Amino acid sequence: MHCIDLNCDLGESFGCYKLGMDEKVIPLISSANVACGYHASDPAVMNKTIKMAKEAGIRVGAHPGFPDLMGFGRRNMNITPDEAYAYVLYQLGALDAFCRANGIRLQHVKPHGALYNMAAKDYKLAEGICRAIKDYDDNLIVLALAGGELVNAAQDMGLRTAFEFFADRGYEEDGTLVDRRKEGALITDEDEAIARVVRMVKEHRLIAVTGKEISVTAHSVCVHGDGVKALAFVERIREALKREEIEIRSLDEIV
Amino acid sequence: MHCIDLNCDLGESFGCYKLGMDEKVIPLISSANVACGYHASDPAVMNKTIKMAKEAGIRVGAHPGFPDLMGFGRRNMNITPDEAYAYVLYQLGALDAFCRANGIRLQHVKPHGALYNMAAKDYKLAEGICRAIKDYDDNLIVLALAGGELVNAAQDMGLRTAFEFFADRGYEEDGTLVDRRKEGALITDEDEAIARVVRMVKEHRLIAVTGKEISVTAHSVCVHGDGVKALAFVERIREALKREEIEIRSLDEIV
Amino acid sequence: MHCIDLNCDLGESFGCYKLGMDEKVIPLISSANVACGYHASDPAVMNKTIKMAKEAGIRVGAHPGFPDLMGFGRRNMNITPDEAYAYVLYQLGALDAFCRANGIRLQHVKPHGALYNMAAKDYKLAEGICRAIKDYDDNLIVLALAGGELVNAAQDMGLRTAFEFFADRGYEEDGTLVDRRKEGALITDEDEAIARVVRMVKEHRLIAVTGKEISVTAHSVCVHGDGVKALAFVERIREALKREEIEIRSLDEIV
Amino acid sequence: MHCIDLNCDLGESFGCYKLGMDEKVIPLISSANVACGYHASDPAVMNKTIKMAKEAGIRVGAHPGFPDLMGFGRRNMNITPDEAYAYVLYQLGALDAFCRANGIRLQHVKPHGALYNMAAKDYKLAEGICRAIKDYDDNLIVLALAGGELVNAAQDMGLRTAFEFFADRGYEEDGTLVDRRKEGALITDEDEAIARVVRMVKEHRLIAVTGKEISVTAHSVCVHGDGVKALAFVERIREALKREEIEIRSLDEIV
Repeated sequence: MHCIDLNCDLGESFGCYKLGMDEKVIPLISSANVACGYHASDPAVMNKTIKMAKEAGIRVGAHPGFPDLMGFGRRNMNITPDEAYAYVLYQLGALDAFCRANGIRLQHVKPHGALYNMAAKDYKLAEGICRAIKDYDDNLIVLALAGGELVNAAQDMGLRTAFEFFADRGYEEDGTLVDRRKEGALITDEDEAIARVVRMVKEHRLIAVTGKEISVTAHSVCVHGDGVKALAFVERIREALKREEIEIRSLDEIV
Repeated sequence: MHCIDLNCDLGESFGCYKLGMDEKVIPLISSANVACGYHASDPAVMNKTIKMAKEAGIRVGAHPGFPDLMGFGRRNMNITPDEAYAYVLYQLGALDAFCRANGIRLQHVKPHGALYNMAAKDYKLAEGICRAIKDYDDNLIVLALAGGELVNAAQDMGLRTAFEFFADRGYEEDGTLVDRRKEGALITDEDEAIARVVRMVKEHRLIAVTGKEISVTAHSVCVHGDGVKALAFVERIREALKREEIEIRSLDEIV
Repeated sequence: MHCIDLNCDLGESFGCYKLGMDEKVIPLISSANVACGYHASDPAVMNKTIKMAKEAGIRVGAHPGFPDLMGFGRRNMNITPDEAYAYVLYQLGALDAFCRANGIRLQHVKPHGALYNMAAKDYKLAEGICRAIKDYDDNLIVLALAGGELVNAAQDMGLRTAFEFFADRGYEEDGTLVDRRKEGALITDEDEAIARVVRMVKEHRLIAVTGKEISVTAHSVCVHGDGVKALAFVERIREALKREEIEIRSLDEIV
Repeated sequence: MHCIDLNCDLGESFGCYKLGMDEKVIPLISSANVACGYHASDPAVMNKTIKMAKEAGIRVGAHPGFPDLMGFGRRNMNITPDEAYAYVLYQLGALDAFCRANGIRLQHVKPHGALYNMAAKDYKLAEGICRAIKDYDDNLIVLALAGGELVNAAQDMGLRTAFEFFADRGYEEDGTLVDRRKEGALITDEDEAIARVVRMVKEHRLIAVTGKEISVTAHSVCVHGDGVKALAFVERIREALKREEIEIRSLDEIV
């Protein structure tokens, strides 16, 4: 039996500012990456998001980011590994408080935006992040890009890791994503994107941007819930998975 | 054998801004109220503070405040009980993450500044705060002003409470503090202040601002570590306690 | 010839968070109250908003608020008059920088949310706000609730004032708004609301919530641009004004 | 007659956090770089700082930084030139509001910390900053590192520029600072540092880290006011300047 997790960034509203269609996407996914109040969210939003996730029976992960609300955590910040350690630990605990209060367990951690991208390339930074995760709860799963330094640091530290697959992104021969500025970075044909997901799950194979067939392993597909079109695409992925008898399972059932 | 806890607000530095003489006061107290990043502190400061407290063997409590760094949490903010619930839960979890990472347990919670003062007078707000504490860990001790609504709400919810005594403040006949704008609000004579602490501990009695002797119970004396003079006063209190054979014990050994 | 200004709060987006339908409402109004980065907005949003206002030929005012992004400036904060002075001066200058860079003049100042409400009742606070306005540019118009302390402080200081009228709110006999918790606080019938606006402009008269006819003066009607329904209502007001041969003019042409 | 400006970063306190010895250093300098509320300071601090500078008769410049209070603006942030434009314009206007309210004119702009360093190397970023300065007031002087891209962008845009000299830093042959990680980065001998200042002012010459004599032009010497030792060093520089009959003049008298 093949199975795959569907993960989505959630709980990114802030104060009176609403972002995303959380209510709509929650029933469609198995794992939620929940913002922790640094790049997005606030305690009231976190409380509401955790309650919704619990009610829907999906699993919850922390989605820590840079302390840059104005830039939504999407701008590189030159923080030290020790600062990364402290920022991630702070956000993990803050989010987990809402999980504890609601009687659910934190499943995974997936850094957000620029922190995710920087950690994929900078082992020292990745180490700071992973140390925080390990010090907090060494049973947490690190959800990251296969082949990146975050995965390396997590595995070197003995943490469980899960890789995520991007349905709408092209891949290089080495399994990394095609740079967004290059041709082939985006898979715009939805049918093709879905066919890639199915084949990746069933055969662990994929056609790289160069045309060469490569081997790819992923435990989760990253989907988006920030618009009507994005939601429709998640529904199509779900239908395809069902048709192909691929089960949607949360990360901790897979890893 | 008489015993009393000495508590002090700590970890209130922020970024490159240093506040308080934490290294000096930590060896003199038994319980630290540690700021959680809302009215003061940041994750790096919290990490350092928890490590220092652990090393010194003192107990740690959370010191949550209003999201008002510019005003140091000293300005009343008209938040709802639900907002208070979420803000306190967030800060509890964030601070506790550093405790967990360092293998120590959170002992108590004492709201900061304006949140402390407002909660002493507003039962609904106090209830929001106590609900967060209970949902997070119903073994936590609520450290507060005797007779205030925070104590009432905590006790109604079945939480353990501890009362704190202010050596340098005058008391009304009903055990509340004399308003700072009124005469007798401050005890400026250090000898008198110390004598009041000793008598409060040994006899649970105190002369109110009106001249009448009243009954007072407290489990902790609140001291300050923000200056050379403040530190010298803490040393004098310690000497007096020793001379009187009153032991300094942390809250959870007393309550 | 009768004339009236239409004012609306604008530029309240923040980072990647979008709020309001500024592009749609700008062509319908004559004066924009532009958020200044404290309760809402950021420099990029302010830049864009001022450019849009300039292009549409409408006038711009500053809309300073409390430093409470999480609460959108809607929660009372117990700041001192001196803090109000400094916060308003800071925000005035910040917004005016974008006006200067675009070659337009700041027309007015209207405090936001809780600051507006508190200043209407607290003369000392209102004085702090007005002192900032006067020190910055004593030609600025203070847009406020008729009969409130902000108007009193502004007039005592020799500042020009303009009163705003709320089409959808009930009025007490003394010209103040009916408390939102009381019956008659809201005028839900759009036809009635529009008829009230027209009569207020032409006859300066209004039926108070008690049924008594009162005298009312206002230079501007406050409208909203935060939804399709709100926009449709503004269009209806405009049509009624046109039908009644009431001209829409900016504040500085009226006061 | 030789003359030179002495500039110092000021007004970096925040809320209850005090930083620097502004009262002590103000009488010793001719130009103050005043923080604008992003990397440091708040409106109350800005108000106080501008009043002190005015009273002392020194000139004031804006010292805009990254929106990173936690990191004191010392961490590189990957903002776009358009974001830099908006952030600098916002901060310029905010600080200038306090100047206007106190009847003084803004003299110059010197970016802070990481923004200063990044702008010295990134022409596009420097252009964003300079565009803001020019759009706000094209009479402002840009105070920067000689030879950096900020100077290039400012001059290309027709803005006046002034170069600052660091008494305690080694220089490369091309007039740039020796990297802090390399030997010779710091001039630790105070006598040598002072001799270098004097020679730079009188002869425009300096011994580079390589031993080669180079030509250097600077209009201002950057000094520090954040400690007793720093203050004593400023006093020594002043004495040396007096002895050598070099006058201390503000930037706008020199450039």
